[in-house]
Amino acid sequence: MFEAVELGQTLEKSEFKEQEHELRGTLLELQRELAEEKIPVIIIIAGVDGSGKGDVVDRLNKWMDSRGLQTHAFWDETDEELERPDHWRFWKRLPGRGAISIMFNGWYGIPIERHMRGECSDAELDEATLRINQLERMLSRDGTLIIKLWFHLSYQAHTKRIKKRHKSRNRLPGLEGHLFTQEQYEQLLDTAESILRKTESGVSPWQMIEADNKWFRDMSAGRSIQAVMQMTLNQLRSSGRIGCEEQPVLSLDNPAMTVLDKVYLDQALERADYKKQLRHYQKKLHELSWKAYLSQRSLVLVFEGWDASGKGGAIRRLLSGMDARLYRVISVAAPTDEELAHHYLWRFWRQVPRAGYMTLYDRSWYGRVLVERVEGFAQTSEWMWGYKEINNFEEQLAHSGTIVLKFWLHISNEEQLERFHDREKTPWKQHKITDEDWRNREKWDDYKAAVNDMIAHTSTHHAPWILIPANDKLFARVEVLKTVCERLKQALEP
Amino acid sequence: MFEAVELGQTLEKSEFKEQEHELRGTLLELQRELAEEKIPVIIIIAGVDGSGKGDVVDRLNKWMDSRGLQTHAFWDETDEELERPDHWRFWKRLPGRGAISIMFNGWYGIPIERHMRGECSDAELDEATLRINQLERMLSRDGTLIIKLWFHLSYQAHTKRIKKRHKSRNRLPGLEGHLFTQEQYEQLLDTAESILRKTESGVSPWQMIEADNKWFRDMSAGRSIQAVMQMTLNQLRSSGRIGCEEQPVLSLDNPAMTVLDKVYLDQALERADYKKQLRHYQKKLHELSWKAYLSQRSLVLVFEGWDASGKGGAIRRLLSGMDARLYRVISVAAPTDEELAHHYLWRFWRQVPRAGYMTLYDRSWYGRVLVERVEGFAQTSEWMWGYKEINNFEEQLAHSGTIVLKFWLHISNEEQLERFHDREKTPWKQHKITDEDWRNREKWDDYKAAVNDMIAHTSTHHAPWILIPANDKLFARVEVLKTVCERLKQALEP
Repeated sequence: MFEAVELGQTLEKSEFKEQEHELRGTLLELQRELAEEKIPVIIIIAGVDGSGKGDVVDRLNKWMDSRGLQTHAFWDETDEELERPDHWRFWKRLPGRGAISIMFNGWYGIPIERHMRGECSDAELDEATLRINQLERMLSRDGTLIIKLWFHLSYQAHTKRIKKRHKSRNRLPGLEGHLFTQEQYEQLLDTAESILRKTESGVSPWQMIEADNKWFRDMSAGRSIQAVMQMTLNQLRSSGRIGCEEQPVLSLDNPAMTVLDKVYLDQALERADYKKQLRHYQKKLHELSWKAYLSQRSLVLVFEGWDASGKGGAIRRLLSGMDARLYRVISVAAPTDEELAHHYLWRFWRQVPRAGYMTLYDRSWYGRVLVERVEGFAQTSEWMWGYKEINNFEEQLAHSGTIVLKFWLHISNEEQLERFHDREKTPWKQHKITDEDWRNREKWDDYKAAVNDMIAHTSTHHAPWILIPANDKLFARVEVLKTVCERLKQALEP
Repeated sequence: MFEAVELGQTLEKSEFKEQEHELRGTLLELQRELAEEKIPVIIIIAGVDGSGKGDVVDRLNKWMDSRGLQTHAFWDETDEELERPDHWRFWKRLPGRGAISIMFNGWYGIPIERHMRGECSDAELDEATLRINQLERMLSRDGTLIIKLWFHLSYQAHTKRIKKRHKSRNRLPGLEGHLFTQEQYEQLLDTAESILRKTESGVSPWQMIEADNKWFRDMSAGRSIQAVMQMTLNQLRSSGRIGCEEQPVLSLDNPAMTVLDKVYLDQALERADYKKQLRHYQKKLHELSWKAYLSQRSLVLVFEGWDASGKGGAIRRLLSGMDARLYRVISVAAPTDEELAHHYLWRFWRQVPRAGYMTLYDRSWYGRVLVERVEGFAQTSEWMWGYKEINNFEEQLAHSGTIVLKFWLHISNEEQLERFHDREKTPWKQHKITDEDWRNREKWDDYKAAVNDMIAHTSTHHAPWILIPANDKLFARVEVLKTVCERLKQALEP
C-alpha cells in the first residue's frame, strides 16, 4: 500500500512559501471553528524513522494557535504507565471538548515496534489492532475528530536520511532512528501495512504522505489536516454529528500522479532472447508447480490490465509450461443468475483451489473497484467497502497457505490506440475489438485513478500487486513467467 | 452473561400447543415476505451440548416452508474443506437472495471447540472473532439477515441431559456430547462468552435462550426468530435497507423474570456469629492485600445496589481490615467541569490503580446503563453502546493483571421501604433520605430491568457481577468480605 507514496513528488521552497500564508490562515480559522463547536481533535503523527515527524509537529505548532493545543510524545513507557493497562497513557492525554492534542506516534508506535522486534505474534498484533479500533470508534461516537497521518519514505530515502543523522554534529544519541537492512525495513512496512489497513475507516481514515521532499511533506500534511477538518465541520453542520458512519473514505479527486506513471514502459526483448528465456522459465515453472503440488501449496494468480494489454497471451505462455491437471483458468465474464443471487465475492470463493492446485483469474474480483466503480454499476459505498472486503478475502487465502500474486499489465495510451487499430485492420483479430473497448478508452483517466486507488489499498504483503510494463508483448510475457517462478521458489523454500 | 438464562423458566406443553398454531402461521407469512423482498436469511443455531439444538432445527423445519429452506450442519471438516481457507465451507452454503439457510453451530462451533481444547490462544480466538465480524458485517451490508440463537443450560441441567443420552438405547456413539467436569464446563462458557460478546452487534445480535424446558426453549426460539424477522421487514420498509447501522440491539420490554428474582434474600447472620466472621475475614484480607501488593496485583471493586441497600456500611467493614496506604475509595458524584469535557469513562480511567493497589468505587461507570438509562440522561444508543464500552474497559484492566469484582447489593422492595421510613424517623439518618430516593423508588421496575440487562451483558469471566442478598445487613457485609478474600486468594495462587 506504500507504492502510491513512492512517486518522488516534490515542491519547491518558493512554492511552499507562497502557499503557506493562506494555509496557515485557513488552519487557524478551522481551529477556531472546531473549538467553538466544542469538538476535541486528535492529530496522530506516525510514520517511519527519518521521515521528519518532529519537523512536521514543529511546523503544526507554528501554524496553529497554541491555546488549546498540546503535543504529546509517546516514547518509552514510564513506571507509572507500565503498571497500568496499555491505553491508560492515552486516556490521560485525551483532549477535552474544543481542544487539540497532537500525538507523536499515538497508539500505533508501540504495537508496530513490538511486532517488528518479534515480541508479539501476528494474532497479538491483530488483538492490539482490535483495541485501537474500539478506542477510535468509541471516541468518535463521543464526537472526537481523529486525524491520522502516516509519513512514508522509500528504503533508499530512509537510509540516506538516517545515515545523515548519524553523521550530524547535532545528533541525539539513541534518537537518530534505526539503520535497517532492506529486509528489516520491509518487515517494518509489512507490520505497518497490516495495522494501517485494519484501522482504516470512515471514522478516522489514514492520510498517506510522501515524506522525501520536506516542502512537499509539510504542505501535504497541512492540506490533509485542512481537508479533514473542513469535511468534519461541513458534516457537523449538515447532519448534526461527525464521522459516525463506519464507511471507508477516499479522496475522489483524480490524482496528479499515479503509480502507473512510475512504470518504465520502454523495456523490450529481442525475439531470439525471448524464445530462450521463455523456454527456460517454462521448464522451471513446470518443476516448481509439481513441487508446489507435492508440498500442498496453492497458487492464485490474478490478471488485470488495460484492454489489449496482452493478458490472454501472457496467460497462455504461462500455462504452456504446466501440467493441465494442476491448473484452472477462470475467465471472468458476466455473472450467472445464481451468482447474481449471492454476494459478489461468492463466485470467486467457489473457485478457490484445493491445496496444491492453481487457479488463474483472467479478470477477477477487482472488477468491483475498477469497472463497477468507473461505470457506476456499484454504489460509491459498495466499491469503497470493496477494498476492505477484498483484503480480508485475500488475507484468508494467504492465511491458509495460498500464494496470491496479482498482475497489472500496463501499456501506454498510444500503444493501446495502435493495437486497437491493428485489431480493426486484421480480419482474425476483429472479434477482439468492440464498441465497448472504445468507450472504455475514453475513460482512461478515470480508470487510471481507480487503478491507483486499487494498488494503494490492496497491494499487501500477503497479496502484492506486480506492475508489468507491457508495451512490448515479449518482454511482458517473460516478465510474468519469471515473476511467478521467483515468487513460487521463494515461497517453497523453507 | 449466562445468568439471565438460568432462571428456570418453563412453559406447559398445553400452553405450547395453544401458541404453536399462531406462531407457525406468522413464521410462514414472514418467510414468504422475506422471500418476496429477496432477502437471504441465515439462522445460526448454537449452544452447549445437550441443549437440544437438533430438536430445535427439526421444529423449525416443520414450522417453515421447505422450499427455499436448507439446513447445514458443520461437523468435522472434510478433506475438501481442510485444504481451503476456514470460511470456504460457509461461503459454499450461503443462501441466495430470498432463501433461508439454517446453520448448525455456524461459524462459531470450530473456534469455540479449538479454544476449549487449548489448540488456540486467546489472541487467536480474538483473531477468529475478528474474521467472523468481518464476514457478518459484509453479508449484512449485502442485505443478508443473520439471526443467531444461543441455547444455554446450567451445569446441572447439562450433566443430567448428557448422562441421560449416554444411557439411552438410541444413543449415537460419539454424538452424545461431552460429559464435562464443572471446571471444564465453566471454561467452555468462558470461551463462548468471549466470542458471543465480541460478535454481538446491531447487525446480528445474539438471542439468548434458556434451554432447560423444551417447550419454553422451542417457543422462545420461534418467538425470537419471529421478532427479528418482523423488525427487519419493518426496517426495510421504512428505511429501504436492513441492519446496516452498527449499533447494539436489546429487547426493551421489561422482562417477566430477572436475575434478581433468583437471589435468595432470606439469609441472615446472628450478631455473635457476625462479629466472629467479620474479625476472621478482616484479618485474612489484611494479609491478602499485602500479598497482592507484593505480587503487584491490583484490585478494582465496584459497588452498586439499590438506595439504602447498605453499600457504605459494607465498604467500611471491608476497609477497616486494611492498611490505608493500599486503597482508595472513589465516591462517584456529579462529574466536574473537566470530567464533563471528556468521554464519560475518562474520569474512571484516571483513577485506575497502580500495580499492587486497590480502588473501590462507591457507584461507578455503571451509572451509564442504570441511572442514565432509566432517567433518560443518556440517549438510547449511548447507553446501549455502554455495555460494549464497559466490557472493553474492564477487559483491559483484567488483561493488565487487575482483579475486577463487581457487587450488586440486593434488597427487596419492602425492605427498602422500611429502611426509608427508618431513615426519616431517626434524626441522625435524616440526611440520608431525599426526595430523589423516593422518586427512584417509583421506578423500581425500570431499574430492575436495567439491572437485568446490565448483568446479562457485563457479567464476564474477567469481571464478574456478584449478587449479594442484603436484606440482612450483617449477612451482606460478611458476604462481601468473604467473596473478596476468596477471589483474591484464588487469583494470587499460582
